[in-house]
Amino acid sequence: MTTPRIVLDAMGGDNAPGEPVAGALMAAGVLGVELILVGRREAIEAELRGTGTIRDVRVVEAPDVIEMEEHPTEAVRSKPKSSIVVGLEMVKRGEADAFVTAGNTGATMAAALLTLGRVRGIGRPALATIFPAADGKLTMLLDVGANADCRPVHLFQFAHMGAAYMERMFGVARPRVGLLSIGEEESKGNQLTLEVHQLLRGSRLNFIGNVEGKDLPKGMADVVVMDGFTGNVVLKTAEGIAELLFGELRKAVELTPWNKAAGLILMSELRKVKRRLDYAEYGGAQLVGVDGIVVIGHGRSNARAIYNALKAARDAVHNGVLETMRAVGKEIPARGQGGAGEGAAGDNGED
Amino acid sequence: MTTPRIVLDAMGGDNAPGEPVAGALMAAGVLGVELILVGRREAIEAELRGTGTIRDVRVVEAPDVIEMEEHPTEAVRSKPKSSIVVGLEMVKRGEADAFVTAGNTGATMAAALLTLGRVRGIGRPALATIFPAADGKLTMLLDVGANADCRPVHLFQFAHMGAAYMERMFGVARPRVGLLSIGEEESKGNQLTLEVHQLLRGSRLNFIGNVEGKDLPKGMADVVVMDGFTGNVVLKTAEGIAELLFGELRKAVELTPWNKAAGLILMSELRKVKRRLDYAEYGGAQLVGVDGIVVIGHGRSNARAIYNALKAARDAVHNGVLETMRAVGKEIPARGQGGAGEGAAGDNGED
Repeated sequence: MTTPRIVLDAMGGDNAPGEPVAGALMAAGVLGVELILVGRREAIEAELRGTGTIRDVRVVEAPDVIEMEEHPTEAVRSKPKSSIVVGLEMVKRGEADAFVTAGNTGATMAAALLTLGRVRGIGRPALATIFPAADGKLTMLLDVGANADCRPVHLFQFAHMGAAYMERMFGVARPRVGLLSIGEEESKGNQLTLEVHQLLRGSRLNFIGNVEGKDLPKGMADVVVMDGFTGNVVLKTAEGIAELLFGELRKAVELTPWNKAAGLILMSELRKVKRRLDYAEYGGAQLVGVDGIVVIGHGRSNARAIYNALKAARDAVHNGVLETMRAVGKEIPARGQGGAGEGAAGDNGED
Repeated sequence: MTTPRIVLDAMGGDNAPGEPVAGALMAAGVLGVELILVGRREAIEAELRGTGTIRDVRVVEAPDVIEMEEHPTEAVRSKPKSSIVVGLEMVKRGEADAFVTAGNTGATMAAALLTLGRVRGIGRPALATIFPAADGKLTMLLDVGANADCRPVHLFQFAHMGAAYMERMFGVARPRVGLLSIGEEESKGNQLTLEVHQLLRGSRLNFIGNVEGKDLPKGMADVVVMDGFTGNVVLKTAEGIAELLFGELRKAVELTPWNKAAGLILMSELRKVKRRLDYAEYGGAQLVGVDGIVVIGHGRSNARAIYNALKAARDAVHNGVLETMRAVGKEIPARGQGGAGEGAAGDNGED
C-alpha cells in the first residue's frame, strides 16, 4: 500500500497555526502518512522551530488566509492563493490524496466544489459526521450543514453515501439507515421527510424508518439523514445542552468541600463522559460527494482534534472511500426504484 | 378576581387516570381554582376514593378515550365523546376558562382548532414551551411541533405572540426575540429563515437576530421562533443528550465504592441539574393562537407535572393571556411593516 499524502491547512481554525502544526507533529511518524503543511511558510516554520528535523512533513507556501468569519464564496473567489484553495488544488492535481482543515467550513465546501467538483451522479455533497451514541456505537449523521435547503432526492443520495461509508470504513454489514423526523410513524414529518420516507422505503437500503432526536444517542441506526439546516441545529443543540449540564455540574462541585472531594473522585469519569461528546475525539466532518477526500474539523480544534482528523483522512484513503462514493454515484440511478424518477439518470438533483 | 375554572383531561397521558387525578388533588385548595375532571367517571372516582370530600373538584363524564398513538384528526372525528373533545367544548361554551391535558398532542391541537378555532388574525396556532436557560432565565420556544411546515408569515406571527406572552406572563419589558438559524449572520439560514429574518427586522419587535442551537441554553433571547419540525427536533435532541449524559454519569457512579460515595454526596445537586431540564417542572406547552387557553403536558407527566400544568393554565387565565393574543391578532396586520404585505389584513397566512 502506498503512503497516503495528506495536505493539512496550517492556517485553519481558531488556534492556527499553533494547534494544526502541533497536531501534524503528533501524527508524523505515527500515522504512516506523508504530511504537507500548507500556509504561510514563515508562520509554520516558526512553529516547527526547535522540534528538530521532522521526517514526512513538508511545507507548501500559501500567502493568503481565509478567516473564520469571511463570506465563503467571496473569500474563495478573492483569495485564490489561500491555504484552503492551494491545498485543495494539490488534491485535484493528484499531488495529494486528502485535504484536512479546521478552517472556514463554508469556504472549504465552496472551494472543494470549485476545484474538485462533485462525484458524478451525486447532486449535492453533504457534510457527514460521526455521532457518539451509547455503548460506543457510532452513528453517521448527514447532512450537518452543507445544504440548508434540500430536495427529497438529495436526502435519498445522502442515505446511499452514508450507508456505503459505514460499510466501507467500519465494516458495518447492511447499515441501518434512519430518517430524522418528529415521530416514528411514517405519517409524521414535514413535506420533505414524508417524501424521503417513501423514497427510502422503495430503495434497496436497510431502511429502519423515522428516528427522533431523542433516539439519536441510542445508536439505533448506523446512518441518519436530514437536511443540512436540521443537522446543524441538532449538532449545535447537543453541544449547547452538554455545555449547560457540565457547567451546572461544575457549579455543584464547587458548592461545598464535600462536593469538591466527590467531584475529584468522579472527575476522571466525568472527563470520559465529556470526551464522548467532544469534537476532538472524532475526526471532524467529512465532505462526502465531492470528488476527493476532504475532512473539516471544528474551528476550535486543538492538536488532538487535528491528529484525529488526519487519522480519519488517512483511513478514508486506505479504505478507498472516494472510489466507494464514485461507485455510489454510478449505482444510484439504477437503484432509485421507489424514486418515481427522482434517481433516474439525468435527474440526480444537480442544480 | 373570579376563580379560574380549569378542565383537566383525567384520561390523558401514559399514567392516566392515576397521575392526572393525583395532580388535581395536589392542586385542589392550593391553586385557588375550580377543577373539572373530565373522563370516565367510574375510573376517576376509583382514584378519588378514600381521599375524602374534595372541595373545588368535580367530575364530568366523557366515555371515550383518545389513546396516545391514535391518528389525531381521525380520532377527534370518530370520538366526539372523548375527554379531549368534551373538555374543549366546555371551554368553547364558556363553562370553563382553560383546558389541560397530558394526552395525544396532535389530537388536542386538532380538537382545539375544531372547537375553539383560531384567534382572529392568526394564521396558525403554535405550540410554545418554556426552555430552562442558564442562571434561571426562561426562554420561550415556538413553534415546537404544531406546524411541521411553515411559511414566513407564520414565524412572524409566532414572534409577536411569543413576545406578547413573555411580556404579559412574566413582565418582561420589550422581550428580546431571536430566530433559530445556523449562524449569527443574517446571510446564514435556509430559505424560510432568511425571509423571516427580513420580516422581523422590519417589525417593531425587539429582534436580536439569529440564534444558534448552542446558544439556546444561554438565555440570550426571551423568545426564539422556528418552524414546528425544527422546534420538535430541538426539544427531543435536548432530551436525548440529557438522558445520555445522566446515563453515563450513573454508570460512572456505579464503578467503584469511592465513586458511589462521591455520587451520593453530589446526588442532590445532580437531581437539581436534571430537574432544570425536566418537563415536570415546567407547565407543559401552551397552544397559542387558538381562541382559548390550552396547556399540553408531556405524555409521561406525573402528578407534579400535572400540578405545574394546572398552575400554568391558572396563571394564563389570571394574566389575560387569551385577551393578549386577541390583541396581537388585531395588531399584526398594522404592524407588519417589513412584511411586504405578508402581514396585511386578509393575508394572515391562514390555510
